[in-house]
Amino acid sequence: MKRRVCIIVAGGSGKRMESSTPKQFLPLCGRPILMHTIDRITAFDPSIRIILVLPTEEKGHWLALCEKHGFTRKITLVDGGAERFFSVRNALSHVATGETVGIHDGVRPLVSIETLRRCYETAEAKGNAIACVAVTDSLRHVATDGTSRSVPRREYLAVQTPQVFTSETLIKAYEADFSPTFTDDASVVEASGVEINIVEGNRENIKITTPMDMAIAEQLLTNKR
Amino acid sequence: MKRRVCIIVAGGSGKRMESSTPKQFLPLCGRPILMHTIDRITAFDPSIRIILVLPTEEKGHWLALCEKHGFTRKITLVDGGAERFFSVRNALSHVATGETVGIHDGVRPLVSIETLRRCYETAEAKGNAIACVAVTDSLRHVATDGTSRSVPRREYLAVQTPQVFTSETLIKAYEADFSPTFTDDASVVEASGVEINIVEGNRENIKITTPMDMAIAEQLLTNKR
Repeated sequence: MKRRVCIIVAGGSGKRMESSTPKQFLPLCGRPILMHTIDRITAFDPSIRIILVLPTEEKGHWLALCEKHGFTRKITLVDGGAERFFSVRNALSHVATGETVGIHDGVRPLVSIETLRRCYETAEAKGNAIACVAVTDSLRHVATDGTSRSVPRREYLAVQTPQVFTSETLIKAYEADFSPTFTDDASVVEASGVEINIVEGNRENIKITTPMDMAIAEQLLTNKR
Repeated sequence: MKRRVCIIVAGGSGKRMESSTPKQFLPLCGRPILMHTIDRITAFDPSIRIILVLPTEEKGHWLALCEKHGFTRKITLVDGGAERFFSVRNALSHVATGETVGIHDGVRPLVSIETLRRCYETAEAKGNAIACVAVTDSLRHVATDGTSRSVPRREYLAVQTPQVFTSETLIKAYEADFSPTFTDDASVVEASGVEINIVEGNRENIKITTPMDMAIAEQLLTNKR
Protein backbone atom coordinates (compact mmCIF):
# COMPACT_ATOMS: atom_id res chain seq x y z
CA MET A 1 0.00 0.00 0.00
CA LYS A 2 1.13 3.53 -0.75
CA ARG A 3 2.26 5.55 2.22
CA ARG A 4 -0.50 7.70 3.70
CA VAL A 5 0.04 11.36 4.52
CA CYS A 6 -2.35 13.88 6.06
CA ILE A 7 -1.77 17.60 5.63
CA ILE A 8 -3.62 19.46 8.38
CA VAL A 9 -4.29 23.06 7.43
CA ALA A 10 -4.46 25.33 10.47
CA GLY A 11 -3.50 28.72 9.14
CA GLY A 12 -6.56 30.64 10.38
CA SER A 13 -6.58 33.56 12.81
CA GLY A 14 -8.91 33.95 15.81
CA LYS A 15 -10.97 36.85 14.41
CA ARG A 16 -14.34 35.15 13.97
CA MET A 17 -13.98 33.52 17.39
CA GLU A 18 -13.81 36.91 19.17
CA SER A 19 -10.46 35.78 20.57
CA SER A 20 -6.80 36.64 20.03
CA THR A 21 -5.88 32.96 20.26
CA PRO A 22 -5.96 31.27 16.82
CA LYS A 23 -9.16 29.21 16.75
CA GLN A 24 -7.32 25.93 16.17
CA PHE A 25 -5.63 26.41 19.57
CA LEU A 26 -8.80 27.17 21.55
CA PRO A 27 -9.65 24.58 24.21
CA LEU A 28 -12.35 22.05 23.38
CA CYS A 29 -13.21 19.90 26.41
CA GLY A 30 -9.91 21.11 27.94
CA ARG A 31 -7.50 20.55 25.03
CA PRO A 32 -6.69 22.56 21.89
CA ILE A 33 -9.03 21.74 18.99
CA LEU A 34 -6.03 20.80 16.87
CA MET A 35 -4.98 18.02 19.25
CA HIS A 36 -8.44 16.45 18.99
CA THR A 37 -8.14 16.59 15.20
CA ILE A 38 -4.67 15.01 15.18
CA ASP A 39 -5.80 12.30 17.63
CA ARG A 40 -8.73 11.40 15.40
CA ILE A 41 -6.49 11.00 12.35
CA THR A 42 -3.99 8.97 14.37
CA ALA A 43 -6.82 6.73 15.63
CA PHE A 44 -7.77 6.07 11.99
CA ASP A 45 -4.20 5.11 11.04
CA PRO A 46 -1.42 5.24 13.67
CA SER A 47 1.25 5.04 10.93
CA ILE A 48 -0.08 7.99 8.88
CA ARG A 49 2.46 10.78 8.37
CA ILE A 50 1.11 14.14 9.55
CA ILE A 51 2.17 17.50 8.14
CA LEU A 52 0.80 20.45 10.10
CA VAL A 53 0.63 23.88 8.48
CA LEU A 54 0.68 26.74 10.99
CA PRO A 55 1.16 30.50 10.68
CA THR A 56 4.93 31.09 11.19
CA GLU A 57 4.31 33.30 14.22
CA GLU A 58 2.22 30.60 15.95
CA LYS A 59 4.78 27.78 15.85
CA GLY A 60 6.24 28.68 19.25
CA HIS A 61 2.75 28.88 20.75
CA TRP A 62 1.96 25.40 19.38
CA LEU A 63 5.17 23.88 20.74
CA ALA A 64 4.41 25.39 24.17
CA LEU A 65 0.90 23.88 24.06
CA CYS A 66 2.37 20.47 23.12
CA GLU A 67 4.66 20.64 26.13
CA LYS A 68 1.84 21.76 28.42
CA HIS A 69 -0.48 18.95 27.32
CA GLY A 70 2.23 16.27 27.02
CA PHE A 71 1.38 15.97 23.31
CA THR A 72 4.20 13.99 21.70
CA ARG A 73 2.73 12.79 18.35
CA LYS A 74 5.49 13.15 15.70
CA ILE A 75 4.50 15.86 13.21
CA THR A 76 6.18 17.81 10.43
CA LEU A 77 5.59 21.54 10.97
CA VAL A 78 5.29 23.73 7.87
CA ASP A 79 4.82 27.51 7.50
CA GLY A 80 1.41 28.75 6.34
CA GLY A 81 0.89 31.08 3.39
CA ALA A 82 -1.29 34.14 2.75
CA GLU A 83 -4.09 31.93 1.39
CA ARG A 84 -5.00 28.33 2.08
CA PHE A 85 -3.77 27.55 -1.47
CA PHE A 86 -0.25 28.68 -0.55
CA SER A 87 -0.37 26.81 2.78
CA VAL A 88 -1.13 23.55 0.95
CA ARG A 89 1.52 24.29 -1.65
CA ASN A 90 4.10 24.78 1.12
CA ALA A 91 3.11 21.43 2.64
CA LEU A 92 3.42 19.69 -0.74
CA SER A 93 7.15 20.42 -0.79
CA HIS A 94 7.32 17.79 1.99
CA VAL A 95 5.37 15.17 0.00
CA ALA A 96 7.00 12.51 -2.20
CA THR A 97 5.66 10.80 -5.32
CA GLY A 98 3.87 7.53 -4.62
CA GLU A 99 2.08 8.77 -1.52
CA THR A 100 -1.65 9.12 -0.85
CA VAL A 101 -2.22 12.60 0.51
CA GLY A 102 -5.24 13.80 2.45
CA ILE A 103 -5.84 17.44 3.29
CA HIS A 104 -7.92 18.14 6.38
CA ASP A 105 -9.06 21.29 8.15
CA GLY A 106 -7.43 21.65 11.57
CA VAL A 107 -10.75 22.87 12.98
CA ARG A 108 -12.71 19.73 12.01
CA PRO A 109 -12.01 17.55 15.08
CA LEU A 110 -15.24 15.56 14.71
CA VAL A 111 -14.36 13.77 11.47
CA SER A 112 -15.26 10.11 11.95
CA ILE A 113 -12.90 7.17 11.49
CA GLU A 114 -15.37 5.87 8.88
CA THR A 115 -15.21 9.12 6.90
CA LEU A 116 -11.41 9.02 6.95
CA ARG A 117 -11.48 5.38 5.84
CA ARG A 118 -13.92 6.03 2.98
CA CYS A 119 -11.82 8.94 1.72
CA TYR A 120 -8.43 7.20 1.87
CA GLU A 121 -9.63 3.81 0.57
CA THR A 122 -11.53 5.36 -2.33
CA ALA A 123 -8.56 7.58 -3.20
CA GLU A 124 -6.30 4.50 -3.07
CA ALA A 125 -8.64 2.69 -5.48
CA LYS A 126 -9.67 5.55 -7.80
CA GLY A 127 -7.06 8.32 -7.43
CA ASN A 128 -9.03 10.75 -5.29
CA ALA A 129 -12.03 11.15 -2.98
CA ILE A 130 -13.61 13.97 -1.02
CA ALA A 131 -16.12 13.82 1.85
CA CYS A 132 -19.53 15.40 1.19
CA VAL A 133 -22.92 15.43 2.89
CA ALA A 134 -26.41 16.28 1.65
CA VAL A 135 -27.49 19.92 1.83
CA THR A 136 -30.24 20.17 4.45
CA ASP A 137 -31.41 23.75 3.88
CA SER A 138 -33.34 25.02 0.90
CA LEU A 139 -30.92 26.94 -1.34
CA ARG A 140 -31.21 30.09 -3.40
CA HIS A 141 -28.83 31.28 -6.11
CA VAL A 142 -28.10 35.00 -6.13
CA ALA A 143 -27.46 36.59 -9.53
CA THR A 144 -25.04 39.48 -10.07
CA ASP A 145 -28.01 41.92 -10.19
CA GLY A 146 -28.96 40.85 -6.63
CA THR A 147 -32.09 38.90 -7.60
CA SER A 148 -32.29 35.35 -6.35
CA ARG A 149 -34.07 32.17 -7.33
CA SER A 150 -34.81 28.89 -5.61
CA VAL A 151 -32.59 26.00 -6.76
CA PRO A 152 -33.22 22.27 -6.13
CA ARG A 153 -31.16 21.38 -3.06
CA ARG A 154 -31.05 17.69 -4.03
CA GLU A 155 -28.67 18.65 -6.84
CA TYR A 156 -26.13 20.07 -4.37
CA LEU A 157 -23.68 18.63 -1.85
CA ALA A 158 -21.96 20.33 1.08
CA VAL A 159 -18.22 19.69 0.94
CA GLN A 160 -16.17 18.68 3.99
CA THR A 161 -12.63 17.50 4.45
CA PRO A 162 -10.64 15.24 4.24
CA GLN A 163 -10.00 15.55 0.53
CA VAL A 164 -7.58 12.84 -0.54
CA PHE A 165 -5.51 12.53 -3.73
CA THR A 166 -2.47 10.74 -5.10
CA SER A 167 0.57 12.93 -4.48
CA GLU A 168 1.18 13.16 -8.25
CA THR A 169 -2.32 14.57 -8.87
CA LEU A 170 -2.01 17.08 -6.06
CA ILE A 171 1.52 18.29 -6.90
CA LYS A 172 0.59 18.80 -10.56
CA ALA A 173 -2.65 20.65 -9.70
CA TYR A 174 -0.86 22.99 -7.29
CA GLU A 175 1.51 24.14 -10.04
CA ALA A 176 -1.42 26.35 -11.16
CA ASP A 177 -1.50 30.08 -10.51
CA PHE A 178 -3.73 31.00 -7.57
CA SER A 179 -7.36 31.79 -8.38
CA PRO A 180 -10.02 33.12 -5.98
CA THR A 181 -12.31 30.34 -7.29
CA PHE A 182 -10.13 27.82 -5.44
CA THR A 183 -12.33 27.38 -2.35
CA ASP A 184 -11.04 23.90 -1.53
CA ASP A 185 -8.51 21.36 -2.79
CA ALA A 186 -11.04 19.62 -5.01
CA SER A 187 -11.60 22.86 -6.93
CA VAL A 188 -7.83 23.16 -7.51
CA VAL A 189 -7.50 19.55 -8.69
CA GLU A 190 -10.63 19.84 -10.80
CA ALA A 191 -9.15 22.89 -12.57
CA SER A 192 -6.27 20.64 -13.66
CA GLY A 193 -8.76 18.44 -15.53
CA VAL A 194 -9.27 15.62 -13.03
CA GLU A 195 -12.75 14.23 -12.23
CA ILE A 196 -13.48 14.22 -8.46
CA ASN A 197 -14.97 11.21 -6.60
CA ILE A 198 -17.49 11.86 -3.84
CA VAL A 199 -17.80 9.75 -0.69
CA GLU A 200 -20.13 10.20 2.28
CA GLY A 201 -18.80 12.40 5.09
CA ASN A 202 -20.37 12.54 8.54
CA ARG A 203 -22.83 15.17 9.67
CA GLU A 204 -20.90 15.85 12.93
CA ASN A 205 -17.76 16.77 10.95
CA ILE A 206 -18.39 20.50 11.33
CA LYS A 207 -15.81 23.24 10.73
CA ILE A 208 -15.44 25.22 13.96
CA THR A 209 -15.40 28.91 13.05
CA THR A 210 -17.70 30.66 15.55
CA PRO A 211 -18.40 30.48 19.30
CA MET A 212 -21.69 28.74 18.40
CA ASP A 213 -19.75 26.04 16.51
CA MET A 214 -17.53 25.62 19.55
CA ALA A 215 -20.55 25.08 21.82
CA ILE A 216 -21.93 22.53 19.35
CA ALA A 217 -18.61 20.67 19.15
CA GLU A 218 -18.34 20.54 22.96
CA GLN A 219 -21.83 19.05 23.08
CA LEU A 220 -21.08 16.47 20.38
CA LEU A 221 -17.79 15.43 21.98
CA THR A 222 -19.43 15.14 25.41
CA ASN A 223 -22.31 13.03 24.05
CA LYS A 224 -19.82 10.70 22.37
CA ARG A 225 -17.96 9.86 25.57
CA MET B 1 -50.92 48.22 10.31
CA LYS B 2 -52.19 45.05 8.69
CA ARG B 3 -53.02 42.20 11.02
CA ARG B 4 -50.10 39.76 11.49
CA VAL B 5 -50.61 36.02 11.24
CA CYS B 6 -48.10 33.22 11.70
CA ILE B 7 -48.76 29.77 10.25
CA ILE B 8 -46.64 27.22 12.11
CA VAL B 9 -46.11 24.08 10.06
CA ALA B 10 -45.63 21.02 12.27
CA GLY B 11 -46.79 18.14 10.11
CA GLY B 12 -43.63 16.03 10.36
CA SER B 13 -43.38 12.52 11.81
CA GLY B 14 -40.72 11.29 14.25
CA LYS B 15 -38.88 9.01 11.81
CA ARG B 16 -35.56 10.82 11.51
CA MET B 17 -35.50 11.35 15.28
CA GLU B 18 -35.51 7.58 16.00
CA SER B 19 -38.66 8.19 18.03
CA SER B 20 -42.38 7.44 17.69
CA THR B 21 -43.20 10.88 19.12
CA PRO B 22 -43.49 13.50 16.34
CA LYS B 23 -40.30 15.55 16.52
CA GLN B 24 -42.15 18.82 17.15
CA PHE B 25 -43.45 17.33 20.44
CA LEU B 26 -40.07 16.08 21.73
CA PRO B 27 -38.88 17.80 24.91
CA LEU B 28 -36.26 20.51 24.55
CA CYS B 29 -35.04 21.67 27.98
CA GLY B 30 -38.13 19.99 29.44
CA ARG B 31 -40.87 21.35 27.12
CA PRO B 32 -42.07 20.33 23.64
CA ILE B 33 -40.07 22.02 20.88
CA LEU B 34 -43.28 23.49 19.49
CA MET B 35 -44.01 25.43 22.69
CA HIS B 36 -40.59 27.07 22.51
CA THR B 37 -41.33 28.05 18.91
CA ILE B 38 -44.75 29.49 19.76
CA ASP B 39 -43.31 31.38 22.75
CA ARG B 40 -40.64 32.96 20.56
CA ILE B 41 -43.21 34.19 18.04
CA THR B 42 -45.44 35.49 20.85
CA ALA B 43 -42.45 37.31 22.37
CA PHE B 44 -41.92 39.04 19.01
CA ASP B 45 -45.56 40.16 18.81
CA PRO B 46 -48.03 39.23 21.58
CA SER B 47 -50.99 40.14 19.34
CA ILE B 48 -49.95 37.96 16.38
CA ARG B 49 -52.57 35.39 15.35
CA ILE B 50 -51.14 31.87 15.33
CA ILE B 51 -52.39 29.04 13.11
CA LEU B 52 -50.84 25.67 13.96
CA VAL B 53 -50.90 22.88 11.38
CA LEU B 54 -50.70 19.40 12.93
CA PRO B 55 -51.27 15.88 11.57
CA THR B 56 -54.95 15.10 12.31
CA GLU B 57 -54.01 12.09 14.46
CA GLU B 58 -51.71 14.21 16.66
CA LYS B 59 -54.23 16.88 17.70
CA GLY B 60 -55.28 14.97 20.82
CA HIS B 61 -51.65 14.44 21.78
CA TRP B 62 -50.98 18.17 21.42
CA LEU B 63 -54.00 19.17 23.54
CA ALA B 64 -52.86 16.73 26.25
CA LEU B 65 -49.37 18.28 26.19
CA CYS B 66 -50.89 21.78 26.48
CA GLU B 67 -52.82 20.69 29.55
CA LYS B 68 -49.76 18.99 31.07
CA HIS B 69 -47.55 22.06 30.58
CA GLY B 70 -50.24 24.64 31.39
CA PHE B 71 -49.82 26.05 27.87
CA THR B 72 -52.78 28.35 27.25
CA ARG B 73 -51.70 30.54 24.28
CA LYS B 74 -54.74 30.91 21.97
CA ILE B 75 -54.09 29.07 18.70
CA THR B 76 -56.12 27.99 15.67
CA LEU B 77 -55.53 24.28 15.01
CA VAL B 78 -55.61 23.10 11.39
CA ASP B 79 -55.21 19.61 9.86
CA GLY B 80 -51.98 18.84 8.02
CA GLY B 81 -51.82 17.47 4.47
CA ALA B 82 -49.77 14.79 2.71
CA GLU B 83 -47.12 17.37 1.75
CA ARG B 84 -46.11 20.63 3.36
CA PHE B 85 -47.72 22.38 0.36
CA PHE B 86 -51.13 20.97 1.30
CA SER B 87 -50.61 21.77 4.98
CA VAL B 88 -50.02 25.43 4.13
CA ARG B 89 -52.96 25.44 1.75
CA ASN B 90 -55.22 24.11 4.53
CA ALA B 91 -54.00 26.88 6.84
CA LEU B 92 -54.67 29.53 4.19
CA SER B 93 -58.40 28.77 4.34
CA HIS B 94 -58.21 30.48 7.78
CA VAL B 95 -56.47 33.60 6.44
CA ALA B 96 -58.30 36.75 5.32
CA THR B 97 -57.31 39.33 2.73
CA GLY B 98 -55.41 42.30 4.15
CA GLU B 99 -53.29 40.23 6.52
CA THR B 100 -49.50 39.77 6.61
CA VAL B 101 -48.85 36.06 6.83
CA GLY B 102 -45.63 34.42 7.97
CA ILE B 103 -44.98 30.70 7.62
CA HIS B 104 -42.57 29.17 10.12
CA ASP B 105 -41.27 25.65 10.73
CA GLY B 106 -42.51 24.26 14.06
CA VAL B 107 -39.06 22.76 14.65
CA ARG B 108 -37.19 26.09 14.43
CA PRO B 109 -37.50 27.24 18.06
CA LEU B 110 -34.31 29.33 17.93
CA VAL B 111 -35.54 31.96 15.50
CA SER B 112 -34.53 35.34 16.93
CA ILE B 113 -36.89 38.23 17.62
CA GLU B 114 -34.71 40.29 15.25
CA THR B 115 -35.16 37.76 12.42
CA LEU B 116 -38.93 37.78 12.95
CA ARG B 117 -38.92 41.59 12.96
CA ARG B 118 -36.83 41.85 9.77
CA CYS B 119 -39.11 39.40 7.96
CA TYR B 120 -42.44 40.96 9.00
CA GLU B 121 -41.36 44.60 8.64
CA THR B 122 -39.82 44.02 5.21
CA ALA B 123 -42.90 42.10 4.06
CA GLU B 124 -45.08 44.96 5.35
CA ALA B 125 -43.01 47.44 3.33
CA LYS B 126 -42.30 45.41 0.18
CA GLY B 127 -44.88 42.61 0.01
CA ASN B 128 -42.72 39.68 1.10
CA ALA B 129 -39.48 38.68 2.83
CA ILE B 130 -37.73 35.44 3.68
CA ALA B 131 -34.90 34.79 6.15
CA CYS B 132 -31.61 33.54 4.67
CA VAL B 133 -28.04 33.07 5.88
CA ALA B 134 -24.74 32.69 4.05
CA VAL B 135 -23.71 29.18 3.03
CA THR B 136 -20.67 28.21 5.11
CA ASP B 137 -19.64 24.97 3.37
CA SER B 138 -18.07 24.67 -0.05
CA LEU B 139 -20.77 23.47 -2.47
CA ARG B 140 -20.77 21.06 -5.40
CA HIS B 141 -23.47 20.71 -8.04
CA VAL B 142 -24.26 17.13 -9.07
CA ALA B 143 -25.32 16.60 -12.68
CA THR B 144 -27.84 13.95 -13.76
CA ASP B 145 -24.95 11.70 -14.93
CA GLY B 146 -23.57 11.71 -11.36
CA THR B 147 -20.54 13.90 -12.08
CA SER B 148 -20.13 16.94 -9.88
CA ARG B 149 -18.42 20.30 -10.08
CA SER B 150 -17.42 22.93 -7.56
CA VAL B 151 -19.72 25.99 -7.52
CA PRO B 152 -18.96 29.38 -5.90
CA ARG B 153 -20.66 29.28 -2.50
CA ARG B 154 -20.78 33.09 -2.30
CA GLU B 155 -23.49 32.96 -4.98
CA TYR B 156 -25.76 30.84 -2.75
CA LEU B 157 -27.89 31.43 0.35
CA ALA B 158 -29.29 28.90 2.82
CA VAL B 159 -33.01 29.48 3.30
CA GLN B 160 -34.67 29.51 6.73
CA THR B 161 -38.12 30.44 7.94
CA PRO B 162 -40.08 32.62 8.63
CA GLN B 163 -41.14 33.40 5.09
CA VAL B 164 -43.64 36.26 5.14
CA PHE B 165 -46.05 37.45 2.44
CA THR B 166 -49.21 39.50 2.02
CA SER B 167 -52.19 37.16 2.31
CA GLU B 168 -53.23 38.04 -1.25
CA THR B 169 -49.85 36.95 -2.67
CA LEU B 170 -49.88 33.72 -0.72
CA ILE B 171 -53.49 32.74 -1.45
CA LYS B 172 -52.98 33.36 -5.19
CA ALA B 173 -49.69 31.39 -5.27
CA TYR B 174 -51.23 28.41 -3.48
CA GLU B 175 -53.90 28.07 -6.17
CA ALA B 176 -51.17 26.34 -8.22
CA ASP B 177 -51.05 22.58 -8.71
CA PHE B 178 -48.52 20.89 -6.44
CA SER B 179 -45.02 20.46 -7.87
CA PRO B 180 -42.11 18.54 -6.27
CA THR B 181 -39.94 21.62 -6.96
CA PHE B 182 -41.89 23.44 -4.21
CA THR B 183 -39.33 22.99 -1.39
CA ASP B 184 -40.48 26.04 0.56
CA ASP B 185 -43.10 28.79 0.39
CA ALA B 186 -40.81 31.16 -1.48
CA SER B 187 -40.52 28.64 -4.34
CA VAL B 188 -44.34 28.46 -4.53
CA VAL B 189 -44.75 32.24 -4.55
CA GLU B 190 -41.88 32.66 -7.00
CA ALA B 191 -43.59 30.23 -9.40
CA SER B 192 -46.56 32.65 -9.44
CA GLY B 193 -44.27 35.35 -10.86
CA VAL B 194 -43.44 37.33 -7.72
CA GLU B 195 -39.87 38.49 -6.93
CA ILE B 196 -38.71 37.39 -3.46
CA ASN B 197 -36.98 39.74 -0.95
CA ILE B 198 -34.16 38.37 1.17
CA VAL B 199 -33.45 39.45 4.75
CA GLU B 200 -30.82 38.21 7.16
CA GLY B 201 -31.82 35.25 9.34
CA ASN B 202 -29.88 34.14 12.40
CA ARG B 203 -27.34 31.34 12.40
CA GLU B 204 -28.90 29.68 15.52
CA ASN B 205 -32.25 29.34 13.72
CA ILE B 206 -31.64 25.67 12.90
CA LYS B 207 -34.30 23.18 11.84
CA ILE B 208 -34.34 20.32 14.35
CA THR B 209 -34.54 17.07 12.39
CA THR B 210 -31.99 14.70 13.98
CA PRO B 211 -30.87 13.79 17.51
CA MET B 212 -27.68 15.79 16.79
CA ASP B 213 -29.76 18.89 16.02
CA MET B 214 -31.61 18.34 19.29
CA ALA B 215 -28.33 18.26 21.26
CA ILE B 216 -27.22 21.44 19.50
CA ALA B 217 -30.51 23.21 20.23
CA GLU B 218 -30.33 22.20 23.93
CA GLN B 219 -26.83 23.66 24.07
CA LEU B 220 -27.86 26.90 22.37
CA LEU B 221 -30.92 27.36 24.57
CA THR B 222 -28.91 26.67 27.73
CA ASN B 223 -26.16 29.14 26.73
CA LYS B 224 -28.76 31.81 26.14
CA ARG B 225 -30.23 31.63 29.63
